[in-house]
Amino acid sequence: MIEETDESFCRRYFGGRGFISYFLLKEVPRGAEPLGPENKLIFATGPVTGVPVPGSGRNSVGAKSPLTNIYGDGEVGGYWGAEFKHAGYDALIVEGKAEKPVYLWIDDDKVQIKDAGHLWGKPTKECQELIHEELGNNNIRVAQIGPAGEKMVRFACIINDLGYACGRCGIGAVMGSKNLRAVAVRGRQKIRVADPEGLSSIAKWYRDNFKNIGWPRMLHSHGTAARFIDINRHGGLPTRNFQTGLFEGAEKVSQDAIVTALKGRRGCYACPVKCKLIVSIDKPYRVDPAYGGPEYETEAALSSVCGIDNLEVLLKASELCNAYGLDTISTGVTIAFAMECFERGILSEGDTDGIRLNFGNAEGMLRLIHLIARREGLGNLLAEGTARAAESIGKGAEEFAMHVKKQEIPLSEPRWKPGTGLGYVVAPQGADHNDNIHDIWYETAIVNELNNFGVFEPVSVNDLGVNKVRLLYYGSMWKQMQNCLVLCWMTSYPVQKIVDIVRATTGWPTSVFELMKMGERCIQMCRYYDIREGMSKGEDKLPERFFTPIESGPLKGYKLDRIVFEKAKNIYYDMAGWDRTTGAPTIGKLQELGIEWIADT
Amino acid sequence: MIEETDESFCRRYFGGRGFISYFLLKEVPRGAEPLGPENKLIFATGPVTGVPVPGSGRNSVGAKSPLTNIYGDGEVGGYWGAEFKHAGYDALIVEGKAEKPVYLWIDDDKVQIKDAGHLWGKPTKECQELIHEELGNNNIRVAQIGPAGEKMVRFACIINDLGYACGRCGIGAVMGSKNLRAVAVRGRQKIRVADPEGLSSIAKWYRDNFKNIGWPRMLHSHGTAARFIDINRHGGLPTRNFQTGLFEGAEKVSQDAIVTALKGRRGCYACPVKCKLIVSIDKPYRVDPAYGGPEYETEAALSSVCGIDNLEVLLKASELCNAYGLDTISTGVTIAFAMECFERGILSEGDTDGIRLNFGNAEGMLRLIHLIARREGLGNLLAEGTARAAESIGKGAEEFAMHVKKQEIPLSEPRWKPGTGLGYVVAPQGADHNDNIHDIWYETAIVNELNNFGVFEPVSVNDLGVNKVRLLYYGSMWKQMQNCLVLCWMTSYPVQKIVDIVRATTGWPTSVFELMKMGERCIQMCRYYDIREGMSKGEDKLPERFFTPIESGPLKGYKLDRIVFEKAKNIYYDMAGWDRTTGAPTIGKLQELGIEWIADT
Repeated sequence: MIEETDESFCRRYFGGRGFISYFLLKEVPRGAEPLGPENKLIFATGPVTGVPVPGSGRNSVGAKSPLTNIYGDGEVGGYWGAEFKHAGYDALIVEGKAEKPVYLWIDDDKVQIKDAGHLWGKPTKECQELIHEELGNNNIRVAQIGPAGEKMVRFACIINDLGYACGRCGIGAVMGSKNLRAVAVRGRQKIRVADPEGLSSIAKWYRDNFKNIGWPRMLHSHGTAARFIDINRHGGLPTRNFQTGLFEGAEKVSQDAIVTALKGRRGCYACPVKCKLIVSIDKPYRVDPAYGGPEYETEAALSSVCGIDNLEVLLKASELCNAYGLDTISTGVTIAFAMECFERGILSEGDTDGIRLNFGNAEGMLRLIHLIARREGLGNLLAEGTARAAESIGKGAEEFAMHVKKQEIPLSEPRWKPGTGLGYVVAPQGADHNDNIHDIWYETAIVNELNNFGVFEPVSVNDLGVNKVRLLYYGSMWKQMQNCLVLCWMTSYPVQKIVDIVRATTGWPTSVFELMKMGERCIQMCRYYDIREGMSKGEDKLPERFFTPIESGPLKGYKLDRIVFEKAKNIYYDMAGWDRTTGAPTIGKLQELGIEWIADT
Repeated sequence: MIEETDESFCRRYFGGRGFISYFLLKEVPRGAEPLGPENKLIFATGPVTGVPVPGSGRNSVGAKSPLTNIYGDGEVGGYWGAEFKHAGYDALIVEGKAEKPVYLWIDDDKVQIKDAGHLWGKPTKECQELIHEELGNNNIRVAQIGPAGEKMVRFACIINDLGYACGRCGIGAVMGSKNLRAVAVRGRQKIRVADPEGLSSIAKWYRDNFKNIGWPRMLHSHGTAARFIDINRHGGLPTRNFQTGLFEGAEKVSQDAIVTALKGRRGCYACPVKCKLIVSIDKPYRVDPAYGGPEYETEAALSSVCGIDNLEVLLKASELCNAYGLDTISTGVTIAFAMECFERGILSEGDTDGIRLNFGNAEGMLRLIHLIARREGLGNLLAEGTARAAESIGKGAEEFAMHVKKQEIPLSEPRWKPGTGLGYVVAPQGADHNDNIHDIWYETAIVNELNNFGVFEPVSVNDLGVNKVRLLYYGSMWKQMQNCLVLCWMTSYPVQKIVDIVRATTGWPTSVFELMKMGERCIQMCRYYDIREGMSKGEDKLPERFFTPIESGPLKGYKLDRIVFEKAKNIYYDMAGWDRTTGAPTIGKLQELGIEWIADT
């Protein structure tokens, strides 16, 4: 069924996370089972998706998460989102469950549900090739789950264009639960925008200038992995399941090491940055360049956090995750959890199918990736994620499960960046790298950009006082707005340029204020949804490990102060308009944002 | 003593009301007597005062109010503010009390305290002429109190350039309490701005376009009185002490009637709108054109609200208020109160020095203005304002005292414009016409400008639902920001132009968001100050009259619904982050705005 949206709806909820949280609140019944037919899988673009400015080639996919049991989504680059928009759509809501494996074929306004029996069980590359062949066109964009999604691994992802992962919250498992293997899209329609010349001039400005902006310049040369060594030098590189922040083998798997395997770069729709590395090796494994290459989170998850300094294994593991459709962060952190359990005698070789699962066991990691994706042996347990696995294992394993709200923690060290730690705790989908402003903001952008938010005081990475919490809250408003706009935040546009992009695209006389309030609206919708689905305020917490000292390296002895952290959390609650007792948004905040209806859902 | 301010202070508190509330919180001890030496009188400009763009010719003067006992200030146009800024100052803080009458002479960086014995008791025009003569320069700008301020009438104002009144909260009485008759200024310094060409182009844009913007076009032709007849036609013109909203004699004192006495127009520094009428008549009274002419509030206060349809009396009364230094709103509403008390037998001829003080008694009104300014007879009682007078009178007089927090209600009818009524109740200085967005916003600006605030839904004048409260709160943020910027809101600049003016003047990379947060910071500082000075949440209320039906006219039967009004007030509290029990700003809101220090004052 194709539904029209009106402008007032679009302006209030923008797209992306705004749309997803809206539809989850409105259409998915309270208490729905994430992997049951009541859950809905929502592909959403944003108002600027597919317009010809860099950063517009993204889309979100969300659902109630089978990993966290609360709000879940992922956002992804590439070409699928723009193609889908060019087919004439803003969002796709998948309901119920197909009786047998199917895929969806969207050819502009022609939509077909097609049999996917022959695709089932296939790696993503083979699946995409088969679809291209069947539909007779290699330019068709395919978003798909892999075998891990079919098996409903709780951290299965959705892959488009093979190398782009809509990674987190197990959205791929939801897609698998619906027997939907892929959504293939071809779009040939022009997007009407309010001010095409305005957009052109912004795009030109970006192409002319992005190499002068620190972060995109680094992205262009080394991808998101660009700061790996720098982070390790600071002593903040999560290593051996976050026991330390200094990885002695870092140089071997650094960004410079990775580029020795570089075969090219690719990017996303309309973007000159081309931050995605394409790597390939022939031995000891063949790593297929079709799958792209590792980003920072993948790099750390499949090396330092498992104590592995083997470049070839890192590249192979990254390829396997894309071929199986596994979220690399959860995969790496879950394996690291198993490794620590093994080292501490909580798991034995009897549990691990004979793998001596010490940190640094590269072959063991590769083997576990296969097992997890296929849900075989120990893999079937780990496919549930660290939190559920720890609960099954017992024997104190929970202490080593690095998760917030059952989602594995991304590769930023909260003891180094307590603001990021607080961000993990208050984010709607548990520990996520995409919910909060990134630590680089603290370091580089204070004087210029953040003054747009009226933040004023420079804050250091280590700080967790009022000024940092304000920066975090205002920054989250902006970040969530970008998650609704579905505009790549890594492009690092100045704030006013983003206002200009929205104006030129939509014709709305918008401002930073409205955009910030959009972000805040989204924060509150997601938070309310989580509380509605039974999340308690007590779950706003970090693993105990972060309140104990880092074991070695430049940050040796660093730990979070529990009193400071709890105080900062309360300040965040206050700033966000969350009741300190229940943790829920106050009705006044909902009313201010025009979303008091959510309290009736 | 001359103190320097740093940029971070200026950016956080801007100027105007931001500065005044800062210094009151920081420097005036809790519980200070408004007319005692502990109180401080603060003249404040804003960051854009005196720069060559229309609307920049204003200044604020504030203190703890002797009328309300809480936060008080007034804002005024003309030339004094720009002159003061050109003398090199942002603010002037007057402390303590002079032993005998003095005036201040600021000649660029030369500041002298001069004897004012010979000025005492003189009307404002004579005083200004004497100062000009003494200092040998008729271009010197003079801000002064009149005889009413000397006598500490609780609604005495400060007058500059004779026709411009810094009217409300009895700030003139504070000046009188310090024995300070005037501040004369001559400034010859150039203001350095970040982008002079940017400012020029905004000024040019305004000069070229202001006649195409509805409100400035009307201002240019009829001053702020332009909508008088229109308001009466709606039935919302406060008449006979707010008993009704339809004044049968309105045509005789309308904007069109006033312009029959027009001798010219004048404006403020750098402004082409020239919204100040200059009127003059010779009989039956001589009205001196030096005093300008009535604005809307004055017009209604000295005609309909007293039931007087005599143009000549209106013009004379307006002149007298400027000559004595009386706030016209409080003057008219206080006299109307006395008239109603007289009609209802609460006051008799024995109380009124024999004046038959019925509504419509034009000569009686003129007589009372003299008596109030001189604190003679009944005038001495009325010089205390309606609330204190009613308390002294007893006999149920309080029912007819139209005030909020002891400040007389401006000439907008809350039963017609409930949003304005709510605004009176939550404003920091009691009923004030300058604290909230003006009702014309509801009617004309929804689709265009307000969408900058993400308000979206059109709201009608009569509405008081969530959308109206949001509009009111967001509108108050913007309005308070303008009170800190000290930029004339009547110029009706589009939102983005104001951002541009601030950027071009200061060089700050500011945004609508920062400006809105500045306004919110100011709201919270003033609110906190009021609570600190003992104001209770119970004082957030309107006179009972507004919960009873309007007696006649198109709005006959209109009344405020108490349940709806209380509900809206609670929504406002919630949106503002005010505790519903105490009415005080929550610490989280203060922390968000970086002003948690005020809780320690």
